[in-house]
Amino acid sequence: MTGRVWLVGAGPGDPELITVRGLDTLRRCDAVVYDRLVASQLVDEAPADALRVDREPLAQEEINGLLVRLARRGLDVVRLKGGDPFLFGRGGEEALALVEAGIAFEVVPGVSSLAAVPGAAGIPVTHRGVSSQVTIVNGHGPLDYAALAAAPGTLVAFMGLGRLSELSAGLINHGRRASTPAAVIASGTLPAQRVVVAPLGGIAAAAAELDPPALVVIGDVVSLAATLSGVLAVAA
Amino acid sequence: MTGRVWLVGAGPGDPELITVRGLDTLRRCDAVVYDRLVASQLVDEAPADALRVDREPLAQEEINGLLVRLARRGLDVVRLKGGDPFLFGRGGEEALALVEAGIAFEVVPGVSSLAAVPGAAGIPVTHRGVSSQVTIVNGHGPLDYAALAAAPGTLVAFMGLGRLSELSAGLINHGRRASTPAAVIASGTLPAQRVVVAPLGGIAAAAAELDPPALVVIGDVVSLAATLSGVLAVAA
Repeated sequence: MTGRVWLVGAGPGDPELITVRGLDTLRRCDAVVYDRLVASQLVDEAPADALRVDREPLAQEEINGLLVRLARRGLDVVRLKGGDPFLFGRGGEEALALVEAGIAFEVVPGVSSLAAVPGAAGIPVTHRGVSSQVTIVNGHGPLDYAALAAAPGTLVAFMGLGRLSELSAGLINHGRRASTPAAVIASGTLPAQRVVVAPLGGIAAAAAELDPPALVVIGDVVSLAATLSGVLAVAA
Repeated sequence: MTGRVWLVGAGPGDPELITVRGLDTLRRCDAVVYDRLVASQLVDEAPADALRVDREPLAQEEINGLLVRLARRGLDVVRLKGGDPFLFGRGGEEALALVEAGIAFEVVPGVSSLAAVPGAAGIPVTHRGVSSQVTIVNGHGPLDYAALAAAPGTLVAFMGLGRLSELSAGLINHGRRASTPAAVIASGTLPAQRVVVAPLGGIAAAAAELDPPALVVIGDVVSLAATLSGVLAVAA
């Protein structure tokens, strides 16, 4: 009998931020295909005799093919992905490959880094009277700086660290104030979390020593970190 | 001794989509202050002798004051919120009130409706070659239609159902094609989930019979639902 596939979001990093259903599917699977950034404690939650595959060396097409082959061998497969499968998670591509192959699947959403990682640094991405709109971009994709600079509210860039000089200059050249508060959060929600806050004009220099994975947050909500981040540290 | 407060995201609706940490804090609390839209199965997870408060009749200022008073009585309090506390969850306001009162707190992020609800309808909010940008707005807030119409990628409106005629007309008047695929998902991730898909020009009429809570999704990614939603139903 053909197995099934669960596309499961593992959350932003901290292993306790997986969902109850996600952990339940993981504990019952025959095989887990996992992203490098997923916590090893989560991969360990799969049954001891489950097949474990680090997808790191594989191209997306190869991952798609692997999921299909494992399911056709009769295995119930968890595809364990950082964050949420459908927010820069390429879950749509895997889902289409499974549809094409006639394999039944289910998507188990996860906590995206989008709000969780800024939140762990004391930054609410929306806040009454400050921001009621969020624009999310992928640092690897094409960026329309004129449109981004004109968008009100908060800007969040996934995988934006490597392009931070270009991003900040592009926004300022198209009208965003150089004094706009900005933050970079590396390894968000993990013990290794590091946060740098600086005005947009200086954020690239200030964050030069941070390493990926990192999330970039730009907008007035960042200024709330001064009040909220200290208390979060006390409570942690 | 003063108690502590956890601001916990309950997720998009389905009670199994709370995080492992969120459920753990809930099972150990002395009091739970919950939103009306949170599943009753989750409220039931609090200890039998925990104080339960439906925050529905309370204004935000009153909720803030209640959290402070309960913690000062020595109770460990879970503030259980739909979705994520920091993405249209007003968690920032509660956090500031707790800081001001000197109460230690922690934020436990949740699965936002943002990607989970479209995902449950077979719509990935990002998809390679289709959308690498997402703009999130609050249907209750001020909207800049010129900027929204110019933003590439996917537009997601929280609480947008009551304003859907204005939203679609505003976007079309500022240059979005009336044929842009659009969807409204009511009660997403719950057994009562209903999905309506139509071109932007006709979405308000098509969704006229849906009731809140509902999420509006506009953009080419919506067309993936035709392929992905059927299979999701089979696997459910």
